[in-house]
Amino acid sequence: MNKISVAVLGATGAVGQRFVQLLENHPWFQVTAVTGSERTTHQRYADACRWILPEPMPETVKDLQVLSSEPEQVQAPLVFSALPSGKAKEIEPAFARAGSIVCSNASAFRYEPDVPILLPEVNPQHARLIDDQRKKRDWRGAIVTNPNCTSTGMTVTLKALQAAFGLRRVFVVSLQALSGAGYPGVPSLDILDNVVPYIQGEEEKVEIEPRKILGELAIGEIAPANFLVSAHTNRVPVSDGHMVCMSVELDQIADLPAVRQAMEGYAPPSAILELPSTPRPVLIYRDEPDRPQPRLDRCTGDGMTTVVGRLRPDPLFHIKMVVLSHNTIRGAAGGSIYNAELLVQQGYLA
Amino acid sequence: MNKISVAVLGATGAVGQRFVQLLENHPWFQVTAVTGSERTTHQRYADACRWILPEPMPETVKDLQVLSSEPEQVQAPLVFSALPSGKAKEIEPAFARAGSIVCSNASAFRYEPDVPILLPEVNPQHARLIDDQRKKRDWRGAIVTNPNCTSTGMTVTLKALQAAFGLRRVFVVSLQALSGAGYPGVPSLDILDNVVPYIQGEEEKVEIEPRKILGELAIGEIAPANFLVSAHTNRVPVSDGHMVCMSVELDQIADLPAVRQAMEGYAPPSAILELPSTPRPVLIYRDEPDRPQPRLDRCTGDGMTTVVGRLRPDPLFHIKMVVLSHNTIRGAAGGSIYNAELLVQQGYLA
Amino acid sequence: MNKISVAVLGATGAVGQRFVQLLENHPWFQVTAVTGSERTTHQRYADACRWILPEPMPETVKDLQVLSSEPEQVQAPLVFSALPSGKAKEIEPAFARAGSIVCSNASAFRYEPDVPILLPEVNPQHARLIDDQRKKRDWRGAIVTNPNCTSTGMTVTLKALQAAFGLRRVFVVSLQALSGAGYPGVPSLDILDNVVPYIQGEEEKVEIEPRKILGELAIGEIAPANFLVSAHTNRVPVSDGHMVCMSVELDQIADLPAVRQAMEGYAPPSAILELPSTPRPVLIYRDEPDRPQPRLDRCTGDGMTTVVGRLRPDPLFHIKMVVLSHNTIRGAAGGSIYNAELLVQQGYLA
Amino acid sequence: MNKISVAVLGATGAVGQRFVQLLENHPWFQVTAVTGSERTTHQRYADACRWILPEPMPETVKDLQVLSSEPEQVQAPLVFSALPSGKAKEIEPAFARAGSIVCSNASAFRYEPDVPILLPEVNPQHARLIDDQRKKRDWRGAIVTNPNCTSTGMTVTLKALQAAFGLRRVFVVSLQALSGAGYPGVPSLDILDNVVPYIQGEEEKVEIEPRKILGELAIGEIAPANFLVSAHTNRVPVSDGHMVCMSVELDQIADLPAVRQAMEGYAPPSAILELPSTPRPVLIYRDEPDRPQPRLDRCTGDGMTTVVGRLRPDPLFHIKMVVLSHNTIRGAAGGSIYNAELLVQQGYLA
Repeated sequence: MNKISVAVLGATGAVGQRFVQLLENHPWFQVTAVTGSERTTHQRYADACRWILPEPMPETVKDLQVLSSEPEQVQAPLVFSALPSGKAKEIEPAFARAGSIVCSNASAFRYEPDVPILLPEVNPQHARLIDDQRKKRDWRGAIVTNPNCTSTGMTVTLKALQAAFGLRRVFVVSLQALSGAGYPGVPSLDILDNVVPYIQGEEEKVEIEPRKILGELAIGEIAPANFLVSAHTNRVPVSDGHMVCMSVELDQIADLPAVRQAMEGYAPPSAILELPSTPRPVLIYRDEPDRPQPRLDRCTGDGMTTVVGRLRPDPLFHIKMVVLSHNTIRGAAGGSIYNAELLVQQGYLA
Repeated sequence: MNKISVAVLGATGAVGQRFVQLLENHPWFQVTAVTGSERTTHQRYADACRWILPEPMPETVKDLQVLSSEPEQVQAPLVFSALPSGKAKEIEPAFARAGSIVCSNASAFRYEPDVPILLPEVNPQHARLIDDQRKKRDWRGAIVTNPNCTSTGMTVTLKALQAAFGLRRVFVVSLQALSGAGYPGVPSLDILDNVVPYIQGEEEKVEIEPRKILGELAIGEIAPANFLVSAHTNRVPVSDGHMVCMSVELDQIADLPAVRQAMEGYAPPSAILELPSTPRPVLIYRDEPDRPQPRLDRCTGDGMTTVVGRLRPDPLFHIKMVVLSHNTIRGAAGGSIYNAELLVQQGYLA
Repeated sequence: MNKISVAVLGATGAVGQRFVQLLENHPWFQVTAVTGSERTTHQRYADACRWILPEPMPETVKDLQVLSSEPEQVQAPLVFSALPSGKAKEIEPAFARAGSIVCSNASAFRYEPDVPILLPEVNPQHARLIDDQRKKRDWRGAIVTNPNCTSTGMTVTLKALQAAFGLRRVFVVSLQALSGAGYPGVPSLDILDNVVPYIQGEEEKVEIEPRKILGELAIGEIAPANFLVSAHTNRVPVSDGHMVCMSVELDQIADLPAVRQAMEGYAPPSAILELPSTPRPVLIYRDEPDRPQPRLDRCTGDGMTTVVGRLRPDPLFHIKMVVLSHNTIRGAAGGSIYNAELLVQQGYLA
Repeated sequence: MNKISVAVLGATGAVGQRFVQLLENHPWFQVTAVTGSERTTHQRYADACRWILPEPMPETVKDLQVLSSEPEQVQAPLVFSALPSGKAKEIEPAFARAGSIVCSNASAFRYEPDVPILLPEVNPQHARLIDDQRKKRDWRGAIVTNPNCTSTGMTVTLKALQAAFGLRRVFVVSLQALSGAGYPGVPSLDILDNVVPYIQGEEEKVEIEPRKILGELAIGEIAPANFLVSAHTNRVPVSDGHMVCMSVELDQIADLPAVRQAMEGYAPPSAILELPSTPRPVLIYRDEPDRPQPRLDRCTGDGMTTVVGRLRPDPLFHIKMVVLSHNTIRGAAGGSIYNAELLVQQGYLA
């Protein structure tokens, strides 16, 4: 099979680098174009990019010339967007209009009624919203998004609970990694010997996105699921891995063994098991009293598995637990790539 | 006024050192005896103690000989206990029986019906439980306790809310400092680039203590306040300062300005304003969107003030906020000293 | 005595804030003007400045209007410069020409033959270079500088050794704090679980400045002292406090007790003992095998004392030791203020 | 080929765990026995061991019963020792006497004249000392050691320089990772926002070991190489990866390109290129001005490659540079395994 040509928009930033790194040796995709801001265009990627990952820069991209983020410059059936939200607002539709499938990590279009927020192990059927989107917007391509990095792991977990017992109320407090703020991101003087109880715009995202992802596909839109979320979000001095303390009120009361069984036994739609990025397993439960922890568990399943632990009763709601997910892999670049694989499988990408 | 002679039990540990440091130049108290484990007795305090505070060891204690923790060895009308809970169980009653007032930071007696958990700016009237305690146990002295370090700041805040609106449900997630685990405490390899979602026995304490402190004094016991608490507790790589994300369901709905006014305007019983350790102010509200933060705010009011910020509406309960309190000062040694001052004022210490 | 009016140039940055904080309640000086970049001028200082110090912003400066850094805007007999070196190159001479004494933390003029690098406890006599400077440049005011933050503590130590034994060769490796890079400075992702063996331009400064400070005052210039320095400089995840590992070849061999005695007994010129910022003591030696350490020792003598420890023989040179100095207090803002006090004493500031 | 049975002594500690993890899927060796202290014997390894590595515990060792460290209990032709030095002193000779080849990470026997300190890419010929050792001690087995973790990377680098130019004087200052202190090791309160300029016994090792490793094999001993080393050693808040700032006086002056060429072109004895653990490459030079860095470079060549950078002239000696090596892989367990492979190749292990 010939690999599909792929462009990475915003390829020199923190998430863009992660796209480039994860796409090295991808069985279906090959990076053939990278874009950047005016400051970097016309340079070699290796020269334009201050590489910040411990994994080395793939040889195959070093000599690519950085292009400007315009469809006239970049022809690719599949485009991954690591653009900041402001730029994504303008650039992503231009690519969709020109015929590219845009798998975006930006929040710019997540809340549009006809744009799905996809987690293949949770709501692959929402991809069909692309058909409505194309009709409504007269696009040959499309935009699909992955959720905010904090919403990702908790929504995978909530899906398992929703499927088994239904959901009423969800209380979450996040302890989020530095890489979620990009690069240069958080100044070291702000976070050494410190935590910061504020991440701009984050709590709103976490209170909205899980309800859309777990909602019902209707014509031209998703009806949000019928539960409520309250979120506090915090920045902590951790490099990678977003941890979430979560309390859940179920629709149908269940004892702890049943809840655990629902999470461990969660079976995603079987078709997605064949995708290269499907986490193996999708969700893992750890028995130790003090797990999951970011440093020890973030790379489970190559950073794609959702790790849950500390299930216990909650005096106010029904259950308490801790959820961990790798924020730049499962929660950002890896999630977008996974979405693109789903679209290949569903025939949206020839 | 002659200063009252004071003994510090467990004076070589992390909290013990903080007692010794805070009592330097105290207007009412003077450290005349320090105790330690068998390993350290008969040594000079300066030799027995691996001092871990940035503030220098007070000159006046350096030459004290470390004694064993027995009332036969240590005569002092006032005793501060920094003992681990297991040892406190045995040693503290021995001192109370021998006539000392024991102000304890240990949890050993906090849940006894006739032992108060005191925060002078919140429940000074609970000190009267000492009378019942003495009768029931036939002690000439007494034991009073301060709450767990995580409960401290949140309970001061809840008091202001309870007084104005009543309380129904409280959801808290803590981000706790390393010093709360004592010394050597948390191994650096466990917490560098990491957070740990587990602190043994902590969630239970946080779910119980605020209800007792905010409860009604009855004969021989406290009737716990009529609200519920759910707690998740986490360890983070911060040296000092426990931060708590808190959502509250009030008994009586109130808008945000009224809630803020209730907190900022909270007036503690006026008698306590004369105590040397009374925080000035008792509670402060910060306007910045990203405060309080441990590194910047923990030393507010010499580490005795409760710092609140980020008041906002909560989609599930009524309000969300962030509370910060210095865990080894307000939440441990400083809190015990403050309690002792209250007991002097109330005449329990001549 | 009426206080001398003082302007702080570049007052909103990290070092500028430290100037403002240290000058609160200064017995001789009073901040009456603050300057900033175009972005901040015309705003209240409290609004223009993202305050990053744990100590609160002094009330007295909050309502000052931020001015542009021009002598036409700012009349003050004494000016502290926290400007970046590029801007200092242009702005500082303008103030000196206009009659102000500029005490600068920038490196822009340190290597000019007629500009002294001053450490009052080391080379107060170098202040006389001002006379030559004024003559040569036809200035009514003057520029004096304090050394680079890393050079500061080691040069105080070297002075004691030079005075007693003479110096031949000095090998230093620094472990430098984050605050030395200003704000926002070092991105947290670059330094969490990491150290960085490179600080631009730093090694050159450390190899040159101690020789000038310890040199002989000649007419119109300083003859550098006759020893050589080799420096490696590193950034480490520490908030404040630069630590230096130093090996020294003396001119005259001495045993360890004599060396220690030379350091502990170092008597600075007696006149400087009357200055408000003179460290008490100037240099302290710690006996513990593992001191000095940044977190425990940086605030010795209100951050102005040089702390030395771990004196031991060196297999290649004569002696090894560790030196610590607070980089934003003794090594930056506090050092400049101390220099200004010296100039008052010497009559350069009426 | 049948795999050689291997025992890991002290398998539950930090280095012991690394042995167990690195030996999973080793092509030549198979762990068939693990030993531990009295507290852990008779338990399953999975139960006895608090596993602290991010990599999961190999399935194949989970059910091994922890044995006591006695040759009567443990029969294995090859034994890896992760014992503390005090215990190694007694236990390792017992195994050597009983016929095992002991590849030890402990320092207990490193300074015995007839025990080699081996780095296969540097001094494979020193393995022949085993013959003298057996004769002298009447052992059927043998003890060989790998150097201290800090000595490792710098000695590989020094070998390249020695081979090309000869060595006279070496000045090193280390910035060492927390994992070098084992587990629980350094308390977090001692190292957060801090560095510690002291590691017990470390400087002596670093000043002695490189000279033995780079020395000449004589009959029954090694004549130490004829250069001198001065070392300062520091602990920094880094999880893994020891960094060393090094200045070198060569025997024969060389310009920087020649020095760099000598390091990059260093060709280890060709036989060792066939060993499974031989780093590929043995030594790598990085061009960036700010590399190597622990977080970014420690895993180069699966943690076995020595990474060098920042070559520049030194005002006192000839050259300055920075060297990085993974302390628990190349500098401890991985180094011992590599030594065992060398002994297989040389016929000491059938």
